[in-house]
Amino acid sequence: MKGLQAALLGSTGAVGQRYVSMLSAHPSIRLEVLMGGRSAGERYGKAARWLQAGGVPDEAASKKVLTSDPRNAEGCDVVFSALPAEAAAALEPKFAKSGLCVISEASAHRMDRDVPLVIPEVNPGHLALLETQKKRRGWRGSLVATPNCTATGLAMVMKPLLDDFQLDRAVVTTMQAVSGAGFPGVPSLLITENVIPYIKNEEEKVAVESKKILGTLADGGVAGSNVEVAISCNRVPVIDGHLETFYGEFAREVEPDGVKDSLSAFRGLPQKLRLPSAPERPIIVRDEPDRPQPRLDRLSGSVAGMSVVVGRVRRGLGNNSVQLTLVSHNTIRGAAGTAILTAELMEKQGHLGR
Amino acid sequence: MKGLQAALLGSTGAVGQRYVSMLSAHPSIRLEVLMGGRSAGERYGKAARWLQAGGVPDEAASKKVLTSDPRNAEGCDVVFSALPAEAAAALEPKFAKSGLCVISEASAHRMDRDVPLVIPEVNPGHLALLETQKKRRGWRGSLVATPNCTATGLAMVMKPLLDDFQLDRAVVTTMQAVSGAGFPGVPSLLITENVIPYIKNEEEKVAVESKKILGTLADGGVAGSNVEVAISCNRVPVIDGHLETFYGEFAREVEPDGVKDSLSAFRGLPQKLRLPSAPERPIIVRDEPDRPQPRLDRLSGSVAGMSVVVGRVRRGLGNNSVQLTLVSHNTIRGAAGTAILTAELMEKQGHLGR
Amino acid sequence: MKGLQAALLGSTGAVGQRYVSMLSAHPSIRLEVLMGGRSAGERYGKAARWLQAGGVPDEAASKKVLTSDPRNAEGCDVVFSALPAEAAAALEPKFAKSGLCVISEASAHRMDRDVPLVIPEVNPGHLALLETQKKRRGWRGSLVATPNCTATGLAMVMKPLLDDFQLDRAVVTTMQAVSGAGFPGVPSLLITENVIPYIKNEEEKVAVESKKILGTLADGGVAGSNVEVAISCNRVPVIDGHLETFYGEFAREVEPDGVKDSLSAFRGLPQKLRLPSAPERPIIVRDEPDRPQPRLDRLSGSVAGMSVVVGRVRRGLGNNSVQLTLVSHNTIRGAAGTAILTAELMEKQGHLGR
Amino acid sequence: MKGLQAALLGSTGAVGQRYVSMLSAHPSIRLEVLMGGRSAGERYGKAARWLQAGGVPDEAASKKVLTSDPRNAEGCDVVFSALPAEAAAALEPKFAKSGLCVISEASAHRMDRDVPLVIPEVNPGHLALLETQKKRRGWRGSLVATPNCTATGLAMVMKPLLDDFQLDRAVVTTMQAVSGAGFPGVPSLLITENVIPYIKNEEEKVAVESKKILGTLADGGVAGSNVEVAISCNRVPVIDGHLETFYGEFAREVEPDGVKDSLSAFRGLPQKLRLPSAPERPIIVRDEPDRPQPRLDRLSGSVAGMSVVVGRVRRGLGNNSVQLTLVSHNTIRGAAGTAILTAELMEKQGHLGR
Repeated sequence: MKGLQAALLGSTGAVGQRYVSMLSAHPSIRLEVLMGGRSAGERYGKAARWLQAGGVPDEAASKKVLTSDPRNAEGCDVVFSALPAEAAAALEPKFAKSGLCVISEASAHRMDRDVPLVIPEVNPGHLALLETQKKRRGWRGSLVATPNCTATGLAMVMKPLLDDFQLDRAVVTTMQAVSGAGFPGVPSLLITENVIPYIKNEEEKVAVESKKILGTLADGGVAGSNVEVAISCNRVPVIDGHLETFYGEFAREVEPDGVKDSLSAFRGLPQKLRLPSAPERPIIVRDEPDRPQPRLDRLSGSVAGMSVVVGRVRRGLGNNSVQLTLVSHNTIRGAAGTAILTAELMEKQGHLGR
Repeated sequence: MKGLQAALLGSTGAVGQRYVSMLSAHPSIRLEVLMGGRSAGERYGKAARWLQAGGVPDEAASKKVLTSDPRNAEGCDVVFSALPAEAAAALEPKFAKSGLCVISEASAHRMDRDVPLVIPEVNPGHLALLETQKKRRGWRGSLVATPNCTATGLAMVMKPLLDDFQLDRAVVTTMQAVSGAGFPGVPSLLITENVIPYIKNEEEKVAVESKKILGTLADGGVAGSNVEVAISCNRVPVIDGHLETFYGEFAREVEPDGVKDSLSAFRGLPQKLRLPSAPERPIIVRDEPDRPQPRLDRLSGSVAGMSVVVGRVRRGLGNNSVQLTLVSHNTIRGAAGTAILTAELMEKQGHLGR
Repeated sequence: MKGLQAALLGSTGAVGQRYVSMLSAHPSIRLEVLMGGRSAGERYGKAARWLQAGGVPDEAASKKVLTSDPRNAEGCDVVFSALPAEAAAALEPKFAKSGLCVISEASAHRMDRDVPLVIPEVNPGHLALLETQKKRRGWRGSLVATPNCTATGLAMVMKPLLDDFQLDRAVVTTMQAVSGAGFPGVPSLLITENVIPYIKNEEEKVAVESKKILGTLADGGVAGSNVEVAISCNRVPVIDGHLETFYGEFAREVEPDGVKDSLSAFRGLPQKLRLPSAPERPIIVRDEPDRPQPRLDRLSGSVAGMSVVVGRVRRGLGNNSVQLTLVSHNTIRGAAGTAILTAELMEKQGHLGR
Repeated sequence: MKGLQAALLGSTGAVGQRYVSMLSAHPSIRLEVLMGGRSAGERYGKAARWLQAGGVPDEAASKKVLTSDPRNAEGCDVVFSALPAEAAAALEPKFAKSGLCVISEASAHRMDRDVPLVIPEVNPGHLALLETQKKRRGWRGSLVATPNCTATGLAMVMKPLLDDFQLDRAVVTTMQAVSGAGFPGVPSLLITENVIPYIKNEEEKVAVESKKILGTLADGGVAGSNVEVAISCNRVPVIDGHLETFYGEFAREVEPDGVKDSLSAFRGLPQKLRLPSAPERPIIVRDEPDRPQPRLDRLSGSVAGMSVVVGRVRRGLGNNSVQLTLVSHNTIRGAAGTAILTAELMEKQGHLGR
């Protein structure tokens, strides 16, 4: 992979910081431009209220935060967006229109008909929508979305189950980390020694995004998968790592051991292409009775935090059903990591480029 | 209700302490005898490593802990057992044989064919098994079990759903408090900033106990209900209060509003009899989107901690399905409180008595 | 005590809610008027994002929140203020000027020369400043401040040590609950599995307020005590209850047992007057090696949360020094409770009244 | 540094696991022998209840755990001991007697007159005691101790303060992580949403060990430093990383800036010798008002977790006094890391060797 020059929208927020961390160690993507709102003009090291262990990476620390203007990203191969939904709705199309390739973590455009909603291991073919997008919108650049953090881990697990066993529907309950709510996010007064059984709009997002991710291209859009998901989203006092319990029903009989084999064997295009951020195994199946756990398993995989960890695979009610538990890192696999992997894939496939 | 003299097995443990707290304020049950294992001979105030806010109730503090011998409970109307399973298996039958009425929180005898497994609001009629029990075992006393803490809240919610809407099956995920594991219980090194997706034997207990509690008397035993429960049990960093997400499927169409009405209207025999520990409403339905929460709702009800709180009642997949979330206090409604309420019911019905 | 009509400024915030809770159960103070900012016009039950266990007390829930205008409190005997500092600076003098007696939890006026900064057990005599205040300011009403939550527990412990043993100086480290930061307050992303070793302006407040509280009246103001306090304030993941370690040096030799006796024997004017919110023992000394703890001891005392709990009394370096640990409830003893107790004292002494 | 063969006593416990992790990535120490008690005979991967993120390092996982017998460590250059105190008291001398060089994290022999208690940056010269030790005990091998986790961070900070400013005495309060208590350690039922103001024997250990570490060789032993430390130890709900507030008094005037310079400039022999586990800066001083924090700063340093992080350096009471806050990683710098660094130093100085 040749080197890419990248810009970052929303660089000072919680997810933005994760991009800065990950890209500071990336072999071939160079984060050239940091953009921000109120903090524009300041040095990044001062502008970001740094939330991760250690300090701000040196190179980023000394960069000046620029305004969120497409001209500031001129010449960049890719613009990552860690903007909140409202700002994303307004700004991202401007960047795409001006000729830039935007990969967005925001929910604003995920369900737009001509915007691919991509997990590189699951539906890389959806990037073909970009042609329609360019035609329809007349943009010189493009806009690709990555899914909601909860939907990401879930869709990765549902993909092989759908292909190998005709998954019909799933009942899912999540226990989500507070970093998913950004900063300042969830007040400690609410979540300490507690569970909050509700995350605004989250259940709706997961249900519709899952269908799109697992759907097939049709008529310049995506025909959603028939899989139905009923989901209950909860916030728990965990920093990083979403845990999800999964009860799946299938169109045919299914054995827990078969499910384990299917999940373990799952590989996607990024693995075939040996992309730098592709973990060797997208899904790691563990056999211990008490795994996966957020704190112990969130950084799993040959690329830390990019593998989903599954455990407790067991029979549900009847022979057509299986239960399991999964953990995925919400700000790596569920946000920055999947976006970076998408950039790597797009570069390889010629979707990026000046 | 006339006064009852009570004895307590396993008085110094975490659940035992909850009995001591609750009975110290009880209008008509007097805790006369505290029994323990290694701590026998010491004053209770010294023997118990007190885990609850405030201090040991004065009267209990000065009592000497006696050995777990039926003779020490002679003359007591009821013996509550907060013993761990193994000790319960060995000791409880001795007490029953010697003529004492034992109400046990332990799992040891819950599934014994002639042992009623009782939630007074749900299946008070199961106490009729005691006749069979006396005949079969030749005991002068009796043994009644109360269910697992998770099963208790769940069965209370399933009862009206079964009666009013023919509940068929349920997919349940729990987020359980650490007090459910007793003392020392869950190491902080494991659960801090984490979720543990496994509680040994818990899922099996809930599945079989639910069927027994909701079953009907038949042939000197209980014919289990047909309701099927698939359950995933998780431990979260919460002190008290189990939260459960519930996805139910019914034999017929059901509306969320109808479910709310059914749950709110639910009353049992303890409410009719106005037993001292019976909350006015066994189930409280809340309308806020983000309730129930363990820390805010665990002590709900006119008798604190005895009401189950339900919220987020909403449609599932299709018209025959509903989802909801419930919280119940695991050491009050899920343990000591239900046992005490059972004693009150048994006294009223003439099952106790010297 | 005859009945008092009360109004409350800042009623919907975290501290405001504590007033609503406490006054809903008060024998003689009736909370008539709830005031708020953005929420004015709504019913309190809807306006307040209720943070405490259980629900909003019924009577308060149905009241309409009024604007923060002195005319809305007309006829009230006392106006409690739970306003944030800036709003307090602007609004409280208006209320006092208009003839109302304001008791404020805000920091805005605590160090004003003619504003008494009162803990009823420690320096009730400082209320005499109100005469100077009225003269100087020409107010028909008055303004009394209660101290910072951390300073309150500390000053209560220092008072008998000063009187009985000539305390010279203290080195204090606090571990403070998140409720002290109000709502939304401390983000969970910052404090989960962590300690934050800094609370803005807190150390300065404790140092100067302690000197004023423990000082003596002089020249229409307070001559500060000579006691010096060096303090390090930390935030820990605890909901309620500030823990403080205290290392004290004295002008003379002192024995840990003497200190324990002095603290246990401490009584103030509220105890003598048997005020409703006065705990029998302002300071409770515990002998267990591992007490006091915030979660177990914060609600101590015959009036729950109004007693400071002290433990680990032991020698420091040399014979003139003693170390100890204390816990006090930051929103009861450290805020609403002390203000309510101050109202009770002022009523008894004729400082209130229409 | 040439390669060393190492053995590990107490390999399956919480601290033992930290050694296994750290040594699996060590450039020149090879962990050949894993010893254990009850788990002897099992594969390490099965025997250890692994508590750290990720899984057991592959090479260790497949090794068989051997009994704690010196013959099993024959040929090893160094034996690390992560034994609990009692086992250490019995076993470590046997290993030393048989000719092995033992470096122990246990408290058992720390205060033995002829056992060096070493932090390589602070008192490397104390290793000279080994000659006396060999003579006195007639051992072919040797025994070196590393200090208590709390004492380690504290002594590292006190060393330059003593040398540069004549530190006289300190008042210290700690907020210690639960990993310091080993496994199972602190029950979650005790520490969740709480602080426990007591750690058995900890305060005594820190006080005496500090004096020995900072003392000088004299008469075949160590003459303790005159520095006096008054300390209050508390447990907080943090996984790793001890935070300590420090109030120091000096024999002469001292400026906060001078203290910062002194701490930042501090280097020890390991830095001069460029030992593999020596962080470039043993002490990192941060200027942000709210640092250091355990979760954000515990893995600081060019060798992660080996630097102590200091912040909030400010004046105390008067010109001879300074306050600061420090964080050090209790199982890396406070245990395994310091022991490994000690092995590296001993190897360089010819204290190890077959």
